[in-house]
Amino acid sequence: MEQEEEELIVKGEDREGCGGACTRCKAGPLADRLSTFVVLTEEDEEVIKSVVDGTTPSYSLESKLGDCKRAAAIRREAVQRMTGRSMEGLAFEGFDYESILGQCCEMPIGYVQVPVGVAGPLLLNGIEYVVPMATTEGCLVASTNRGCKAINTSGGATSVVLRDGMTRAPVVRFGSAKRAAELKMFLEDPGNFDTVAVVFNRSSRFAKLQDVRCALAGKNLYARFMCSTGDAMGMNMVSKGVQNVLDFLRTDFPDMEVIGISGNFCSDKKPAAINWIEGRGKSVVCEAVIKEEVVQKVLKTTVPALVELNMLKNLAGSAMAGALGGFNAHASNIVSAIYIATGQDPAQNVESSHCITMMEAVNDGKDLHVSVSMPSIEI
Amino acid sequence: MEQEEEELIVKGEDREGCGGACTRCKAGPLADRLSTFVVLTEEDEEVIKSVVDGTTPSYSLESKLGDCKRAAAIRREAVQRMTGRSMEGLAFEGFDYESILGQCCEMPIGYVQVPVGVAGPLLLNGIEYVVPMATTEGCLVASTNRGCKAINTSGGATSVVLRDGMTRAPVVRFGSAKRAAELKMFLEDPGNFDTVAVVFNRSSRFAKLQDVRCALAGKNLYARFMCSTGDAMGMNMVSKGVQNVLDFLRTDFPDMEVIGISGNFCSDKKPAAINWIEGRGKSVVCEAVIKEEVVQKVLKTTVPALVELNMLKNLAGSAMAGALGGFNAHASNIVSAIYIATGQDPAQNVESSHCITMMEAVNDGKDLHVSVSMPSIEI
Amino acid sequence: MEQEEEELIVKGEDREGCGGACTRCKAGPLADRLSTFVVLTEEDEEVIKSVVDGTTPSYSLESKLGDCKRAAAIRREAVQRMTGRSMEGLAFEGFDYESILGQCCEMPIGYVQVPVGVAGPLLLNGIEYVVPMATTEGCLVASTNRGCKAINTSGGATSVVLRDGMTRAPVVRFGSAKRAAELKMFLEDPGNFDTVAVVFNRSSRFAKLQDVRCALAGKNLYARFMCSTGDAMGMNMVSKGVQNVLDFLRTDFPDMEVIGISGNFCSDKKPAAINWIEGRGKSVVCEAVIKEEVVQKVLKTTVPALVELNMLKNLAGSAMAGALGGFNAHASNIVSAIYIATGQDPAQNVESSHCITMMEAVNDGKDLHVSVSMPSIEI
Amino acid sequence: MEQEEEELIVKGEDREGCGGACTRCKAGPLADRLSTFVVLTEEDEEVIKSVVDGTTPSYSLESKLGDCKRAAAIRREAVQRMTGRSMEGLAFEGFDYESILGQCCEMPIGYVQVPVGVAGPLLLNGIEYVVPMATTEGCLVASTNRGCKAINTSGGATSVVLRDGMTRAPVVRFGSAKRAAELKMFLEDPGNFDTVAVVFNRSSRFAKLQDVRCALAGKNLYARFMCSTGDAMGMNMVSKGVQNVLDFLRTDFPDMEVIGISGNFCSDKKPAAINWIEGRGKSVVCEAVIKEEVVQKVLKTTVPALVELNMLKNLAGSAMAGALGGFNAHASNIVSAIYIATGQDPAQNVESSHCITMMEAVNDGKDLHVSVSMPSIEI
Repeated sequence: MEQEEEELIVKGEDREGCGGACTRCKAGPLADRLSTFVVLTEEDEEVIKSVVDGTTPSYSLESKLGDCKRAAAIRREAVQRMTGRSMEGLAFEGFDYESILGQCCEMPIGYVQVPVGVAGPLLLNGIEYVVPMATTEGCLVASTNRGCKAINTSGGATSVVLRDGMTRAPVVRFGSAKRAAELKMFLEDPGNFDTVAVVFNRSSRFAKLQDVRCALAGKNLYARFMCSTGDAMGMNMVSKGVQNVLDFLRTDFPDMEVIGISGNFCSDKKPAAINWIEGRGKSVVCEAVIKEEVVQKVLKTTVPALVELNMLKNLAGSAMAGALGGFNAHASNIVSAIYIATGQDPAQNVESSHCITMMEAVNDGKDLHVSVSMPSIEI
Repeated sequence: MEQEEEELIVKGEDREGCGGACTRCKAGPLADRLSTFVVLTEEDEEVIKSVVDGTTPSYSLESKLGDCKRAAAIRREAVQRMTGRSMEGLAFEGFDYESILGQCCEMPIGYVQVPVGVAGPLLLNGIEYVVPMATTEGCLVASTNRGCKAINTSGGATSVVLRDGMTRAPVVRFGSAKRAAELKMFLEDPGNFDTVAVVFNRSSRFAKLQDVRCALAGKNLYARFMCSTGDAMGMNMVSKGVQNVLDFLRTDFPDMEVIGISGNFCSDKKPAAINWIEGRGKSVVCEAVIKEEVVQKVLKTTVPALVELNMLKNLAGSAMAGALGGFNAHASNIVSAIYIATGQDPAQNVESSHCITMMEAVNDGKDLHVSVSMPSIEI
Repeated sequence: MEQEEEELIVKGEDREGCGGACTRCKAGPLADRLSTFVVLTEEDEEVIKSVVDGTTPSYSLESKLGDCKRAAAIRREAVQRMTGRSMEGLAFEGFDYESILGQCCEMPIGYVQVPVGVAGPLLLNGIEYVVPMATTEGCLVASTNRGCKAINTSGGATSVVLRDGMTRAPVVRFGSAKRAAELKMFLEDPGNFDTVAVVFNRSSRFAKLQDVRCALAGKNLYARFMCSTGDAMGMNMVSKGVQNVLDFLRTDFPDMEVIGISGNFCSDKKPAAINWIEGRGKSVVCEAVIKEEVVQKVLKTTVPALVELNMLKNLAGSAMAGALGGFNAHASNIVSAIYIATGQDPAQNVESSHCITMMEAVNDGKDLHVSVSMPSIEI
Repeated sequence: MEQEEEELIVKGEDREGCGGACTRCKAGPLADRLSTFVVLTEEDEEVIKSVVDGTTPSYSLESKLGDCKRAAAIRREAVQRMTGRSMEGLAFEGFDYESILGQCCEMPIGYVQVPVGVAGPLLLNGIEYVVPMATTEGCLVASTNRGCKAINTSGGATSVVLRDGMTRAPVVRFGSAKRAAELKMFLEDPGNFDTVAVVFNRSSRFAKLQDVRCALAGKNLYARFMCSTGDAMGMNMVSKGVQNVLDFLRTDFPDMEVIGISGNFCSDKKPAAINWIEGRGKSVVCEAVIKEEVVQKVLKTTVPALVELNMLKNLAGSAMAGALGGFNAHASNIVSAIYIATGQDPAQNVESSHCITMMEAVNDGKDLHVSVSMPSIEI
């Protein structure tokens, strides 16, 4: 019992990267041995007790105390007492608890520190970028850095954005498939697009409806709205735009029953062929030609060996495993590290790391053309 | 150009959760306005210049200076100068840079702060757990907390671990499919299992080989080794065990060419049917019966509405989208938040969030039986 | 050896349907005990010998003899001698061998007889149809017939064609992904559509280009052309249209290398998400409301039992199996039987039987709404 | 209306292969212009009328008349009158209608003639096989024949059967996932295997249980039984064996509710990853080395061109299309033609044509190693 409880709280010893040997892991993966607690007063002690005994709901501490940091400290102490587990490994000081109130994370008790390393510079489209990666996986930054070096030495990489649109797909139900089909015809009719777009785009000055695609499962309609969202990831403005359209449709389709603003045909945070094929967020292809000598000196291998490995592992191996959009080695590692470093949603890593890596020998078989095609990077 | 560079570094304004309104976002998503830099000396200035002009490689700073924190500070300053971008938003102080050296993250310049909120307690198998979640997605902790409340009020949840084994699948090549088939027969022959297991298990006192399953793509063999790993996630011990077996096989299969220690049939950090069907890591099913009145009061809906939504969204909607193991609403959100909070690898979120959510009316249609089946939680 | 040879030739004893008990099976699955051979002359005997000893190529018999039936009879006898296996079970007389010359089947030695049963009438969109089914699977026609009866008694079924377009997707390669992206932009630019369509549509007076969608795997472009084809299945006219466009593109994209007129992004005769999501051929939804009493009397079950079975088998069970477009019970049986009866290509059954079956209780839970949604019926 | 009705009955003009030009197509795809009807008597006329007006159910004709051929002739005439469509194109004479009664096809009205051509001989494992193919797709037999020639000239092909087991997976439901998990543990416990196998194997002297694998979706259990079936495809004996086990389990699991004898986790006649990964029926790999000069002279191309085409089309192209087990060019064509010729079930073509084609240059890049790996050939 105690043991299992511990699992949830201080899990993480024996990290893959270091085998639990590093001082950080020894102190717990969330360790910040420098952090000191806010000093708790007698008055605080009363509040802590009332949280522990259930008199004061934990979620009400911020509004009750009017001091976010103190609320977090009290909650933290209450959790320690309730679980009997020390929170020592979790950083507390040095964070602005006011800033997340009602915005980013409810009922905080501290924060996790994820170290940020830098790979690069990476020469991309003629510009040098430094790539920040937040990770605790040993060698990940170093190997990415080596890749950047190989690319730069060979003249840099090139990328093209092929498409850019965020999606949301409500599911609505009718009394018959016939009626559902009528809504599909309406929404996909080019003649109605301008009207629907005007309604949709009221959600934000950045929102611009691009496309609506509908699928029917009997009398249930899934309508996938895709729109450009300016610089934002834009999930919210898309949802609002969809709601606008659903409201608008009630006049002509009063028999439409909205089952869910998301019908999983979007598809958000799940591996789904629709994202792989239709794209979601930014669809990008990026390529570089790595010179033969660079492959040998920097990557310590040969062009034919890499081409073969890519075919047998990333293409055929993934095919054997029944992969969906997973025709790569470890795109997920790099995507999630950059997402955490740059404040993107790491839960979207699922489809954002969809990637097919291609390697072909070029220049009479001497050099290596390598590319990654990623259809659904949500940022 | 400047603009694009900025994207990589300070991306994250306009977070979905807060619309960019919170003070934390305003200061940049990585903001720690309290952090103060180490004071850089004149000597440091020399080193910074040499990093900027390329004389001193960035990765060598730790060994050159013998002071990890100073190395990180100098690297950070060098990155600022090279990119012309302020690092002000990225926390620096309050982190033990020595602890990650050679273990967790190379070339650090600071760290990201991810707030940790607590949901729960969650009554699971008769024990109360507090669930730590590291996230900046607004409402995620709150809604998880509400779920916990609904579960607890209804008597708690129950979970069963159905399987527990980490996998690694090398790809090896032969001169013919016939030879590859011979190795398959050898590895899958129960009579050889004990021998292979002894060789494999030398990798760690925790490693215990459970199963080997082979697939052929012509003359290329993918052998998926599954083993229990004690309390560790165990990727490393599995890889080592696989290497042991490959070395051992060279005597009887000298014509075997090892193409890769991973052939993507494992399958690590990619959405692949093999994990969904065979499992990877822990295969778990968790269930609860939510009482009718709790569904109404806590979840603000009805049992039939939830059953229907689950069928039309999580089952049919995902089927329409061509989902693979994504028959749920947002398992990925919760998995990634817990992974980051507890030091698990967030890149494995891809398959660890495979989940089918089932909802059925029980007790004469009054109450709700809800379950999540998750076959590949890698922890 | 003899045994294995037999497998290929007279396989089929022990048919699932009859357990090998029926007289037809006893005589071999291809049996036509009534057929009598053409009488072979001495001259024929010479030809047979020359085919057996390899002097006369089997494929040249038709042109050499100028008599298709005689050519088939001689080939048949030659095969019998070469394999030592009797062809008695394979029908020969009663077929017009001239008619298939150079059109439908090379090197014929006879023909298979597949019995055609009729289900129905089926009341669909107010019209009664008789459904011809060519099958040797026992009970298939009978159970389809029972379904028709249940539908008719309840007032008939309704269908809607949601989309109708055949596809072909060549794969072409460039020196860089950047160039491949330029072709994608060109082909997907609405401003170029009319030009491309004119070129494409020259392939046939029925061909009408509807859409072009491109995907990139690095520097390789897959362009999926979709067009309406009149009443024909239209694979040939689409292929010809694609060739027209590729020829046309050579002026502006002289660096384009055509790797294959089909790049498997079409996707023909393979299970692929792109057909499930984008459709291929006719996308159809068909629905009926089966009355409570009909469910009980004709189908011998209840509405709640059917709804539950559909959810647990066709939705959840298929989800567990990692199905792609296979959310039904046995659509493939009916599709292949109708395809063979009506001269459609049974090899396209693979994707033409993609189907999601939905069942919902309607009319206050009394009656059953049942539907099939089939996105890629190629006819 | 008339037009649509025609579609179902005489569909098939404008066949892809011949563009509708061949005499066979001109007469309707089902044409047998030689067939003459049985002469209908006045007594027959009465029966026909009673079928048309619904007094005599069509399905009762065989038992009523005691003459299967006459029953079929009368039914055929009745269908002609009801639909107003001529059945002239459908062969009638020359078929033994008694033999299919109660076995293979209910309510027959005639039969389809599918011409059988022969490809080969194919030198496989040192033996020459003639490959019978029933098809109306022009060039299919000819191109298969050319492939055989290329293989034979290069020394023949080799095949290995990797696995051989038919499957059936019932879905059963419990009151809780915990109980479902208990059954899973029971069925997968090696200690119980012998007992379960004895019960299962009572279904047939050929049945031999090999394996049981269970998956849970909440409290619903899908148990995939795999067994060897001797020379039969064996669907029936597996179903019976499963029923035996379910009956046996009722003692220890009286709370088990059998929802369906098939829960789609089998998975029969649907594209599903479980067949691709675990296999169903025979799992086979077949390989050949085609000599450089043969590639050039017989196949009219080069080794590097084929290797590249295979990578860009069969591997990468299918990956882009979201294929499941469809990493080949047109396996389905050959499988369905052989299935129809040899009396196999063409509806199982869906998964039986799962195939990955690999091509690699061997012998210092001179020759071509080609293989097909097919995990679920159901015969």
